[in-house]
Order: sequence, then structure tokens, then C-alpha cells
Amino acid sequence: MAGRRKIIIDTDPGVDDAITIFAALLHPDVEVIGLTTIFGNCPTTKSTENALGLLELAERADVPVAKGSDCTFTGEEKLRIADFVHGDDGLGNTGGMRPKSKAVEATASEFILDCASKHPGEVTVLALGPLTNLAIALRDRPDVPLRSIVCLGGAFFVNGNVNPSAEANIFCDPHAADLVFGGRVPMQIVPLDVTCRCLFSSMDLETLAKEGGTIGKCVSDVSQFYADFHKRTYNLNGLMLHDPTAFIAVVRPDLFYWKSGAVRVACDGLLKGMTVMDENKKIWRGENPWTGREQHSVALQVDDRAVVDAVRATLLGKVQGRTE
Amino acid sequence: MAGRRKIIIDTDPGVDDAITIFAALLHPDVEVIGLTTIFGNCPTTKSTENALGLLELAERADVPVAKGSDCTFTGEEKLRIADFVHGDDGLGNTGGMRPKSKAVEATASEFILDCASKHPGEVTVLALGPLTNLAIALRDRPDVPLRSIVCLGGAFFVNGNVNPSAEANIFCDPHAADLVFGGRVPMQIVPLDVTCRCLFSSMDLETLAKEGGTIGKCVSDVSQFYADFHKRTYNLNGLMLHDPTAFIAVVRPDLFYWKSGAVRVACDGLLKGMTVMDENKKIWRGENPWTGREQHSVALQVDDRAVVDAVRATLLGKVQGRTE
Repeated sequence: MAGRRKIIIDTDPGVDDAITIFAALLHPDVEVIGLTTIFGNCPTTKSTENALGLLELAERADVPVAKGSDCTFTGEEKLRIADFVHGDDGLGNTGGMRPKSKAVEATASEFILDCASKHPGEVTVLALGPLTNLAIALRDRPDVPLRSIVCLGGAFFVNGNVNPSAEANIFCDPHAADLVFGGRVPMQIVPLDVTCRCLFSSMDLETLAKEGGTIGKCVSDVSQFYADFHKRTYNLNGLMLHDPTAFIAVVRPDLFYWKSGAVRVACDGLLKGMTVMDENKKIWRGENPWTGREQHSVALQVDDRAVVDAVRATLLGKVQGRTE
Repeated sequence: MAGRRKIIIDTDPGVDDAITIFAALLHPDVEVIGLTTIFGNCPTTKSTENALGLLELAERADVPVAKGSDCTFTGEEKLRIADFVHGDDGLGNTGGMRPKSKAVEATASEFILDCASKHPGEVTVLALGPLTNLAIALRDRPDVPLRSIVCLGGAFFVNGNVNPSAEANIFCDPHAADLVFGGRVPMQIVPLDVTCRCLFSSMDLETLAKEGGTIGKCVSDVSQFYADFHKRTYNLNGLMLHDPTAFIAVVRPDLFYWKSGAVRVACDGLLKGMTVMDENKKIWRGENPWTGREQHSVALQVDDRAVVDAVRATLLGKVQGRTE
């Protein structure tokens, strides 16, 4: 087991979260040491149930789940929930999960801090939802010894998906995002610029249903509602693999083109939730809000075919481990 | 003379404004029916003097100049003046202009409204600075029968030049820009996405100095300070032809790739001056600040070599007219 990458998945399952959790559990190079939950695709209570249920379905109820925040970093309780994308149950209206297992006592942020302390410099958080839990953890311990944060979020040089300026995860808790992007934990940010290019087709879903066992069947079932959403709103035959693409960025960063720069988030106003990076092409006159901020890596291009192949192969158990 | 495109240049000369004014005066397909002035590269009083002086130098003192606003659309008198780019005199610290001629009585916005009334549907405003004068004109007469507004401004899918989010013309008066972009006059917006790709080299300046007569010599002289700025801040051997590129968009729109969409401007906050367009790739859930806004054309790609060739040829008097 030595050499496998320890990851915590901070998640709001969520259809593409479910696909990602399965992929991470199945990938030979990764050790999922816990799931932490958040609101977004559904409320946090529901996302916690779904996380527990998905682990049971994958026969991995040994993986701990820690429940995260029910409100934004600034305490806002009125949340934007994407039930119109993921269904009322967060899993494509397939009936929801009724898990037997329970979440651990610790909150999500406590769990993350605890794991980082136990394995300093070894733990990666794969953040698939609003960054609230990580913001709380970083507020409480700015020098938390995480290896890295790989984050699905933002829209840098493309339109957002909430509106032309904002991507959903960042829009849901912009203060949290701006804090985490300003933090000292190394980040790889995986924005819409690349994730909207990585698509499963209906044929992929059929293959998974046929050849992917219980997990493949579940992926196909929960994805139908999500596929309908894509047809309706983008006139697209296929579904965007947002979260799974961020997971592939953990195990196959070589499939992405990264650019480093300081990142800021608009926390309110017309462009609330918008992410802007300094591309470092110009020496600015005087200081601006990007000056002196931590430089993080942002994925701006992707070998999309290779990413989709990697997601499919992982779910079908066909990926060879590199670390064993 | 029939068939020549009537244009008013709304301008803050400015080095690249000077190049553009000369090019427009020399181009066989264009009839410059007036200059209106604005702050930006220098204060409005200075830009008015420069406009008058440049016309005298080109022996075209017959072209009327109307002085524009000394403050932003909302009345802000503390302005951002780009003297570090264009010199204290706005013309690369070459000593400034001492024109004999005077501006007309009418203000810039009155002049624009007047010309539009005289030649309904025929006048194009080429806007090279902050959009204050046009915003005042459109506030006073939303249905002003202009043919079009071609505007140098914005940074859509690239970094700005004031800071990572904002381009200078829009940043200097974002309220004006948001009003004009929401107006009914058809617009072609020429942003940094394309203008920063169109460069004069020092060889181009030498050629103009040698072969371009009085005007070519003036272009070369005023451009030296501006070229030094590019070397210092972008480590670039060359100077960006922002304003001249917008002029070429008037006479050669075929050299650009246009995308239409609604455009909004952040008027305050972290991303003040940022321009965001809806690419119309998604059917949004509910309304957002872009909903129902006028669709304008934004230049997102450019045949940069052809644009630079066109600017150089125009200044050298080597362009064949299409309309004669």
C-alpha cells in the first residue's frame, strides 16, 4: 500500500461526485482516507447520506465520512442548491440512499486537520464542491501540512455555468474560495476551461452499465437525469465530467497544461463568484489585489480524450497501478 | 466623396490615438467628420490641444474638434491618467502641441448627436478612450441614429492592462461603458484579446520616419516613449497598436473573427472595469444580469499580420480605396 496517494474527497454528491468517488476507490494509485461533505448539488445532510450510501454500495463502508458545513463561510444559510442538475436527491432522482453507516463525530474541517496532522505533507484534498470546509480548516490553521488541494472550480477564460461570469462551486461560497486561493497549501485548480471539454457519451454509460458491475450500473443510472440536463441546456449529447476530470488531475497531471498565477474571486456584485488569475504577462504599475498572493497552478488546456479514457478505464477496473 | 464612411473619432491622444487619427485622415474609404475628445491617456484639455495640433500637422485643420467631458459619467473628477504610458504631454514627451485652431462650441456629446441627426444612419463613432461622451449622448438620446460604434475596449478572455481584470478605457469609466454596451446602437467591440497581438516593430517606425513624410516622422517620434513602456512592462520589442487596430476593424472587419453576445461591465469592487460577455453557449436557468441585453459583436480573434500591414500601408498612403 505504500506509495499510494492519500486523498480526502470533499464532496457534495452529486452525480459527477458519485462517479469520482467510485473512480477514486477503484484507482490503484490512490488511497481514499475519508470523505468530507458539503452543500452544493444537494444540502449537506443529503450529501452526507449519499456519501455514506455510495461507500456502502462500493463495499467500502470502512472509509470514514465527516459531515461538513450547512452554511457558507460567512454564515449564509440561504444556499444555491443545484437540484435542477442533480435531482432532488442529488443522485439523478434515483430514489436516494438509505445508508446504515453513520458519519464520524468530527466535522469535515476537523477531520481534514486531523488527517493532515497524522500524515504531514502526505494528504491531498480533492475538493469537488464549494470550498467552505477547507476555508474553515485554513482559517483555523493556515499552516496545515496538507500536500495539496486539487479543486474543481472556477471559469477563467471561458463563461461560467451559473451565469456568464461564475462557476457554481465558487459562486456558492466565494468568500471561502478567495480565502483558500490565498492560502499557502499548494493548489491545482481545475476550472470549466478544461472540465467542460471532457464528456461521457451515452455509449460510455451503456458500456459501464454492461461491463462495470454494481458500480458501473449505478453510474449509468444516476447519470440519466444529468444527461437530460445537458441536452436541455447546452443542446449537448453527452455529460460533462467536471469532478472526474479534477480527479484525473490528481493521478495524471500530465494530461493537463498548467499555468501558475495568483487567483482572486469576486465575493459580491455583478460578477459575484468570478475567478480571475494574473497570467504574469505584465509588470503592473503599483499594487493591485493580486499582488503578493500565493501562486497556484490552473489547468487551462487538457488532453480531453485521454482524460475521458482514463475515467472510463478506472471505473472498469482496467487501470494499471504505477506505484505498486 | 460619396460612399466614404463618415466617422467621428472620440479620442484621448495619446500615442496610438495619434497614429489612428493620421491613418483615418489618410484612408481613402473614410471621411473623418470630426474629432471629439476625452480624458484617459491625458486630461481632456490636453487631449483637445493634441487633437487640434495633430490635425494642423496633417494640414486638416478643417476637421472640427469638440471637447468632451472632464469627469466620468457619474461626475468623478479624480481620473486615472496614463501619463506613464503616453508621457506627460500625451504624445511621448515630445514637447506637446501649441495649436492655433480652437475647438467648436458644442460639447463632444452634442457634436455626436448633431452629426447623427444631420446624417441619420450614416455616422460611425470610433471610440478610442473611456466611453463617457457616448454615454452622455445615449443618455440624452437613446435612439440616436448612429450607424455604429466601433470601440477599443475591454478584455474578455485575456488579462486586462490596468490589472489582471480590467482594460484601461473601461476601467476609467465603467458606468459609461456599461450604459453604452447596453444601448441600441450596433457595436463592434475591439478588446485586448485582439489588439495586444497587433504590434509595430522598431523597423516599422524607421520605415515610417523615412518614407512617411511629416506624418510618418511624427508617428515615429511620439512612439519612442510608448515603445520604451512596452519594453519595460511586457519585455516586448514592439508596441501594441490598440487604437489603430480598432480603426482597421472599421475599414476591414473581415480581418477579425467576431462573436456576438450581451456584454456587462463591473462598475465597482475587486473586478472594477472587467468586461464579461455571454457567449450564448448555454440556456441559463432564470434571469441574470446579461438577460435581454443588446447583443453586440466582439472581436475575439484577428489576422494580426494583415492588420499591421494595413496600418502601415495606410500611413504610407499605399491603400487603394474601395469606394471610389
